[in-house]
Amino acid sequence: MAIKIAVPKEEAPGERRVALVPEVAGKLVRQGHAVAVESGAGVGAHYLDDAYEKAGAQLVEKRTELLGGAQIVLKVQPPTEDEIDALPEGAVLIGFMYPHRYPERVAKMRDKKLTVFAMELVPRITRAQAMDALSSQATVAGYKAALIAADTIDRFLPMLTTAAGTIRPAQVLVLGAGVAGLQAIATAKRLGAVVSAYDVRRAAGEQVRSLGAKFLELEIDAEAEGGYARELTEEEKAKERAMVEEAIVAADIVITTANIPGRRAPILVTKEMVERMKPGSVIVDLAAESGGNCEVTKPGETVQVGDVRVVGPLNLPSALAVHASEMYAKNLHNFLELILTEEGGLELDWDDEILAGSVLVHDGEIKHAPTRELVEGGAA
Amino acid sequence: MAIKIAVPKEEAPGERRVALVPEVAGKLVRQGHAVAVESGAGVGAHYLDDAYEKAGAQLVEKRTELLGGAQIVLKVQPPTEDEIDALPEGAVLIGFMYPHRYPERVAKMRDKKLTVFAMELVPRITRAQAMDALSSQATVAGYKAALIAADTIDRFLPMLTTAAGTIRPAQVLVLGAGVAGLQAIATAKRLGAVVSAYDVRRAAGEQVRSLGAKFLELEIDAEAEGGYARELTEEEKAKERAMVEEAIVAADIVITTANIPGRRAPILVTKEMVERMKPGSVIVDLAAESGGNCEVTKPGETVQVGDVRVVGPLNLPSALAVHASEMYAKNLHNFLELILTEEGGLELDWDDEILAGSVLVHDGEIKHAPTRELVEGGAA
Repeated sequence: MAIKIAVPKEEAPGERRVALVPEVAGKLVRQGHAVAVESGAGVGAHYLDDAYEKAGAQLVEKRTELLGGAQIVLKVQPPTEDEIDALPEGAVLIGFMYPHRYPERVAKMRDKKLTVFAMELVPRITRAQAMDALSSQATVAGYKAALIAADTIDRFLPMLTTAAGTIRPAQVLVLGAGVAGLQAIATAKRLGAVVSAYDVRRAAGEQVRSLGAKFLELEIDAEAEGGYARELTEEEKAKERAMVEEAIVAADIVITTANIPGRRAPILVTKEMVERMKPGSVIVDLAAESGGNCEVTKPGETVQVGDVRVVGPLNLPSALAVHASEMYAKNLHNFLELILTEEGGLELDWDDEILAGSVLVHDGEIKHAPTRELVEGGAA
Repeated sequence: MAIKIAVPKEEAPGERRVALVPEVAGKLVRQGHAVAVESGAGVGAHYLDDAYEKAGAQLVEKRTELLGGAQIVLKVQPPTEDEIDALPEGAVLIGFMYPHRYPERVAKMRDKKLTVFAMELVPRITRAQAMDALSSQATVAGYKAALIAADTIDRFLPMLTTAAGTIRPAQVLVLGAGVAGLQAIATAKRLGAVVSAYDVRRAAGEQVRSLGAKFLELEIDAEAEGGYARELTEEEKAKERAMVEEAIVAADIVITTANIPGRRAPILVTKEMVERMKPGSVIVDLAAESGGNCEVTKPGETVQVGDVRVVGPLNLPSALAVHASEMYAKNLHNFLELILTEEGGLELDWDDEILAGSVLVHDGEIKHAPTRELVEGGAA
């Protein structure tokens, strides 16, 4: 029997991605599933309705009708209260959930007895790489951050040898060498800049150097579980500030990418440091959404301090909606392989560490301990 | 005796360049000249007043005072009527002049008995390459056009191999392979796109291919004097349209750069072609200022036709004001070498073909024949 998979149009402001692209919809249809897509769901990402129809998906005008008949719902952003209301009890919902931002929605999903998988909770293990939506979307964000920096600054990035003299290449500093940072490094290198990077995780040095960038070394090591950087001690922070500050003052462009999941981003660039930067320099703060790595960052705005501009972009993956959606849809498809059986059924194997790790809500219970504590209080 | 060289702040809307950067000001000072710069002249290009002071230039608050005492005035944009009024009779004025746009200013400069050199009239000969401001500024425009295209489109330019599948590289088509077109090609290649280009001048093919791009060949040849493309015949235009149309429809990004000096830009991309393009495609029209190579282009705006965006940027060199100013100032410095003697004097050698070719107005006469015809009428 065909499983009914539904894809609503994303409603969050500025969100242009769609959870399923026609190519992946076609794969699910060929696997025997019934895919229904809200009319216009892919328009923001340039996937038009006829492309979904060609792929064998059904177009549905009314969202409540679409969701009411669904067994699995695929989303990018967390569901709205209306969406939760429209879902049948027991439906499976997959997408980014940001439970610390929307505890009341988590409670609602619990009460509705939905099975909810949060893509940001997929364990960062080798077997789950193809489902790692945080990584795929960070790849997009890192690329876009470098482009924004290049388009904002009033100088060339590459060295140029012209009849009117030689232009020196721009100095780009990337703070944080996770997936986004590495992609920012790679893109700035492509554009011909001289790139250096810093990360509290020393292991990142090898990856940074393999991209042709210089790795700034500090005598500490701070890798925590899950591949994320842990927060630094006060002493380490002071040491870091001194080294980072020197590099910032020498840079034309600084791209910051330090995020701690579910927490305010650490401040790496103080207002004082910004004031010491060269006239015309540009900071792109990829952590703007979680408070910013730069003290003066304003989410969604460009702030001018003296002659330095600090850009705080929001939802960068949405800016590259075509490919961000494509990669995300492939992440979802790989995830769906875990719960869709070859016979066309739906089966939740809780012994699978990926399912067990990413489940947020199931059968009337909040399964993710920190979220349970947040929503229901008491010990986890 | 020191020659008095003055640099006013540019007043044209959106103009952030400055005709002299501190580095070149310093060179002129070391050569024994007196350089005066209007206070704040370089701010838009991040060259602050103290940098000029350090270079030995004098800062002047009042523009009329600055201009009133000048023997040579360096400009980016044509002088305003007020600037002409403030100049002493017989002063030498050097900058872009666009005489076809400002015939009344040319008349005023003639009546004031100024000696005016138009940088866009510098002959495109080997000896004048280092003074070729059209080329230096076109280099900037081509780079910026590719960046704008990359920042506008909702997809990656490079090929990416990720855990979430392989991203195909973007297809970029550049129409017109002059200086701007070649720089756009080089920049799109840097960013990892698959690039093809077209130019009516077959000779451009070798340069295009040397940048790793594909050259689209058509069976005509149309190079005119001065390295510019001549206008095509109707038959050639039809042939071109068919070939270009096919390439446009296959492209994710089209960058058009076809300009004919002093004339409306030729239409290379019709509205009908835009309508046939793929959803999400982007056109950047570098000829927007002179009417556009695309039928739907609006100067200074982004036009949406179906799901295709057509960007019509104005004054792109100003967007990279740091380096555009640096290159332009070096062009001017090389030009000044022709008229400044080693003894610190000013000498106009009309046997020099660069001076003879670029002089617009001298000693009460309009020397440039097409402009004389435009301003004074009658045969040239």
